[in-house]
Amino acid sequence: MRHVRFRDPSGATRTGTWTSDGIEFGVTTYDPEAVDILPPSEPSKIVCIGLNYEDHAEEEGMELPDRPMLFLKPPNTLAGYGDKISLPEGKDQIEFEAEFGVVIGEQCRNVDKANAMDVVAGFTCVNDVSNRDDQRVEQNWVRGKAFDGAAPMGPVVAPVENVPDDATIELRLNGETRQQSSRTELIFSVPELIAEITDYMTLEPGDIISTGTTSGVGGLSSGDEVEVEIEGIGTLYHTVE
Amino acid sequence: MRHVRFRDPSGATRTGTWTSDGIEFGVTTYDPEAVDILPPSEPSKIVCIGLNYEDHAEEEGMELPDRPMLFLKPPNTLAGYGDKISLPEGKDQIEFEAEFGVVIGEQCRNVDKANAMDVVAGFTCVNDVSNRDDQRVEQNWVRGKAFDGAAPMGPVVAPVENVPDDATIELRLNGETRQQSSRTELIFSVPELIAEITDYMTLEPGDIISTGTTSGVGGLSSGDEVEVEIEGIGTLYHTVE
Repeated sequence: MRHVRFRDPSGATRTGTWTSDGIEFGVTTYDPEAVDILPPSEPSKIVCIGLNYEDHAEEEGMELPDRPMLFLKPPNTLAGYGDKISLPEGKDQIEFEAEFGVVIGEQCRNVDKANAMDVVAGFTCVNDVSNRDDQRVEQNWVRGKAFDGAAPMGPVVAPVENVPDDATIELRLNGETRQQSSRTELIFSVPELIAEITDYMTLEPGDIISTGTTSGVGGLSSGDEVEVEIEGIGTLYHTVE
Repeated sequence: MRHVRFRDPSGATRTGTWTSDGIEFGVTTYDPEAVDILPPSEPSKIVCIGLNYEDHAEEEGMELPDRPMLFLKPPNTLAGYGDKISLPEGKDQIEFEAEFGVVIGEQCRNVDKANAMDVVAGFTCVNDVSNRDDQRVEQNWVRGKAFDGAAPMGPVVAPVENVPDDATIELRLNGETRQQSSRTELIFSVPELIAEITDYMTLEPGDIISTGTTSGVGGLSSGDEVEVEIEGIGTLYHTVE
């Protein structure tokens, strides 16, 4: 069952099930296009991974790290399916990055790799929107990665068993395929990431780990339509202004 | 009126007033040592400033930035007055950093410098605990700055008018003064920081801006007692294991 958070027509926040018929909650089935779909969880933090694909590290001219490169996006970065995000003004290069997102299901710390999947509620699609103008010149990627709207995600939390180990990850910009990869290409696996992160910090239910992007990143501009599709999860759609 | 969040003896979370008599809530006055004092707000994020004092930039051998250097601490870093924080294990150099903390009072974005103080609820004391082993070798200071317990703060939110423009900031380690500075030494002022941060991100009520540290930072080890005292606010006390 793929869970989706949404506002029903009365404005109430609900968590329903995304099926081939629509969004089901109680005895009602809603048209996904007729309700306001929210980010799939309410994370206290999003822990992102840099340079977790060989081909993206190459295209950025950076060396592969010997342990996961971590950075943070706070809750102000959240956006959901169907939302129009506003890019920071006056920047030359703001780019999309399709990512495989892990939704944490329970509070946890010091999790072993072997047990790491026990703390996972499911998976979602993330666009790690990146402002290269600032990212390139700052020590910590705050202006570069933590601006409002920099983390569209969703539309659902798909259960682990829904998503094949070699699930394809694809980003389309205005209908054209720009990034294509698979879960198998991750340098650090989901259990390795959970073990490393929880060695330092407690993860909370709803927290997100965004596992890094593949090659093919490119610029966003006003009017663009973005789709991030991951096999077994679905398609995150959002626009840009 | 200096506000303090605490758990009363029944376990209920309260916001009382810190007076010379104790903590007042309703008709009851509590002994501050007899209740569990909580962090002074529930921030969705803590935005920290690096290298905001000339003497600290010098001691770290780093150049002064031409705009505020930003980094983030998520809510897992919070600790309160009287708490015992657990340092990450196996590190050689974990240090204290006494900082002047700004508590945001309302949701805001794109705030002008001239109006910035309107969004401030008050001020508090922060210890920006820093794990130099990892900070020195990572691009983004996540292992270095965002581990559990890395942001003890409190004990109160003091109103703006309580705190002189030249308020002294002092850190004592096991009773010995190790850092001494004043608000006047900040390179980027509180209004300048709010304007710069809200150019990129929305701040929420309870969010904290920690404005950087002065020279004199030094190592923490098990059993240490730390006091951060700021004129007009009070003294944040915590221990380390």
